[in-house]
Amino acid sequence: MIVPKYNKYSMNPLVLMTDFGLKEHFVAVMKGVALTINPEIKIYDLTHLISPFNTWEAALTLNNTIGYWPSSTVFVSVVDPGVGTERRSIITLTKSGHYIVTPDNGILTFIADGGRIEAIRVIDETRHRRPESENYNTFHGRDIYIYTGAKLASGMITYEDVGPLYSGEIVKIGYQKAKFHKGVVQGTIMKIEYPFGNLVTNIPYELMRQIPGLDYNVKLYVEIKEKSKLRYEETLPYVRSYGFAAAQSPLIYIDSSGYTGIAVNKGNFAKQYQIAGGHDWLIKIGMV
Amino acid sequence: MIVPKYNKYSMNPLVLMTDFGLKEHFVAVMKGVALTINPEIKIYDLTHLISPFNTWEAALTLNNTIGYWPSSTVFVSVVDPGVGTERRSIITLTKSGHYIVTPDNGILTFIADGGRIEAIRVIDETRHRRPESENYNTFHGRDIYIYTGAKLASGMITYEDVGPLYSGEIVKIGYQKAKFHKGVVQGTIMKIEYPFGNLVTNIPYELMRQIPGLDYNVKLYVEIKEKSKLRYEETLPYVRSYGFAAAQSPLIYIDSSGYTGIAVNKGNFAKQYQIAGGHDWLIKIGMV
Amino acid sequence: MIVPKYNKYSMNPLVLMTDFGLKEHFVAVMKGVALTINPEIKIYDLTHLISPFNTWEAALTLNNTIGYWPSSTVFVSVVDPGVGTERRSIITLTKSGHYIVTPDNGILTFIADGGRIEAIRVIDETRHRRPESENYNTFHGRDIYIYTGAKLASGMITYEDVGPLYSGEIVKIGYQKAKFHKGVVQGTIMKIEYPFGNLVTNIPYELMRQIPGLDYNVKLYVEIKEKSKLRYEETLPYVRSYGFAAAQSPLIYIDSSGYTGIAVNKGNFAKQYQIAGGHDWLIKIGMV
Repeated sequence: MIVPKYNKYSMNPLVLMTDFGLKEHFVAVMKGVALTINPEIKIYDLTHLISPFNTWEAALTLNNTIGYWPSSTVFVSVVDPGVGTERRSIITLTKSGHYIVTPDNGILTFIADGGRIEAIRVIDETRHRRPESENYNTFHGRDIYIYTGAKLASGMITYEDVGPLYSGEIVKIGYQKAKFHKGVVQGTIMKIEYPFGNLVTNIPYELMRQIPGLDYNVKLYVEIKEKSKLRYEETLPYVRSYGFAAAQSPLIYIDSSGYTGIAVNKGNFAKQYQIAGGHDWLIKIGMV
Repeated sequence: MIVPKYNKYSMNPLVLMTDFGLKEHFVAVMKGVALTINPEIKIYDLTHLISPFNTWEAALTLNNTIGYWPSSTVFVSVVDPGVGTERRSIITLTKSGHYIVTPDNGILTFIADGGRIEAIRVIDETRHRRPESENYNTFHGRDIYIYTGAKLASGMITYEDVGPLYSGEIVKIGYQKAKFHKGVVQGTIMKIEYPFGNLVTNIPYELMRQIPGLDYNVKLYVEIKEKSKLRYEETLPYVRSYGFAAAQSPLIYIDSSGYTGIAVNKGNFAKQYQIAGGHDWLIKIGMV
Repeated sequence: MIVPKYNKYSMNPLVLMTDFGLKEHFVAVMKGVALTINPEIKIYDLTHLISPFNTWEAALTLNNTIGYWPSSTVFVSVVDPGVGTERRSIITLTKSGHYIVTPDNGILTFIADGGRIEAIRVIDETRHRRPESENYNTFHGRDIYIYTGAKLASGMITYEDVGPLYSGEIVKIGYQKAKFHKGVVQGTIMKIEYPFGNLVTNIPYELMRQIPGLDYNVKLYVEIKEKSKLRYEETLPYVRSYGFAAAQSPLIYIDSSGYTGIAVNKGNFAKQYQIAGGHDWLIKIGMV
């Protein structure tokens, strides 16, 4: 793993991800709590537009982001349909040296599947809870997660201070992994990229390039099913970037995270062809 | 009151709330003006998605936020349908030691109703106006409010420097206060919490607990009227948090600000039952 | 020109504008890259809600903003439908001392038309590209623009280090310039101001005041055409600010940038009268 390069007393970025939206006071309340703990703390927004309660979307978004931030960055994820009920509140240290503060509800699925978890600690709520918040049961983002995350990010507590190590199973969300079989790759449409409408799959370039004869501008067969129902079937060019297909034409490309995507140049594939993403949306790609 | 702990020369957070949305240049222009005054100033967003001209929504959102921020934080509210006409531009000091820069148009309703105003000063626009802005009459957020707020937040002026004290009436928005009468609490549905669709009432836990026999999991009678028209009538369980009701089931709870709320677990109450919020939406809750 | 007042080693604001929206990880990834380059860098958002691929909107929004920021501020614009194809990646220095990092795709139209470009340098991608990003062709915002912009904003490179000077033509978007002819001003409806629905024209006050007899509260003739088709024709009062017209009444005013606007007081002109903005929308205003 990468050892966090800052010591106990240094200030690390605190990055927030929620499904609270941008209209209400919730996010600003969390930031106020963090700044009350330490006025020098530096707070950033990942996104607050995770679809309400959608832990799948949150897990993907977090996984796409953390690697680009300095090690020791503290991510606080508050997508928490089970708030106030029994569920583990944890801080995970990744092998890349990032911290993730979150309820244990599937958010870590892709990081765990990638073997990138270094350690998990359960937040000791008897020590790490906003004073006088014991009677509030619906906003642990404010009372536990940002409160503890801000103390960790600003070096007021160490990772060891968070609470005991946890070595049991964490909650994971199931989905069809990507695979290569008899010349064809298949996997899941993980999501639709907003606002462009591109399909994002879980098929990495390393699998794609096993398709015999793959090269820029070859035509590939694409099949998309929602469960067992065929929803799209076409041959599309494999190109270097959007602009190498004609305007308003569909194409296959490797996206900026190294995964296979389907898009329409200057258009919106998902809208045009009525395709969505998630566990039920499966894709196959092969040579024509 | 809480005496602001920073002295004249210290840097305090500057927090912006507007109805400008997030698409246009307005908010960035205000931030540029603030940073031109002092490049070290720390600017935060409360929200910019207040519904256009909706001072009621702005008043609620501000009231829900300020208490969580460090004392001496300067809030700048620009929801200003009367910009350029005669209306007072004021900076209010709350008893909690926070400053609020705003046109006097109802924004302070709930803070005033709570008896939490320490002092009000009228901005002396002859001294506190962006240079060369005299010919512009439609963006006082830029030319007066952020300009003066940034100077106050960065300690370039004191509160006394803002302008003369004001001891007259301020503009307040009327609404049905919460009350307990013959075993039943009643009040106003203050708003629908976006994006979850929870109803937020002005009935505090202190009133709710006067309902004889109130305890977790008892069933309560709920009646919602829009003016005099019945819009919803049901018995709902009173629970500790969303997850203690069945998924997609409605429930009553105490929200994270200590007020009574109505929600659907993992659902959207307002959408499902076509309920809105505001002065016209009244609610009664009592034992079945 | 204004000589940037900070030296090579100082930290200047880094301001981001994209069409990425606020839901996905893209913006946070860019910020993480910037903070990895320099953890002290100060990052601000102009907007991320530019309509997808809409360089016209981006050009207007940037032009409306830069003058309010401290000189030496570095703006990074990523509205980039041609990403990964051949198109110039440039950093422009304006006469006001601001830097703009962008693909050369029309973003600089209004700054160039205003004669406010001091110099243009082409980014030398052999030296200024995120390490190990050579195989990614769809996210130059991450791999080139923020990467180079962050180094410039934090003084790790000088403007001269960016790459060679460019003195050829840049890409510009065509539109009908404003003019005064026989007592009538005419120009383009540049855009609809979100969320208020005000029309923003390219007719400056300096042209408007050439209309004989112009004064507050006079009635002016307004004609709006979409190409050659008449879409609106009315006489409207010319007022100091929105509130000087009756509620829900249309009006003409000078907006906060010094240009002529059409609005409905406490209403939404564009929605009410079905008017849009862009190259095809032309307006004439004259004395009745």
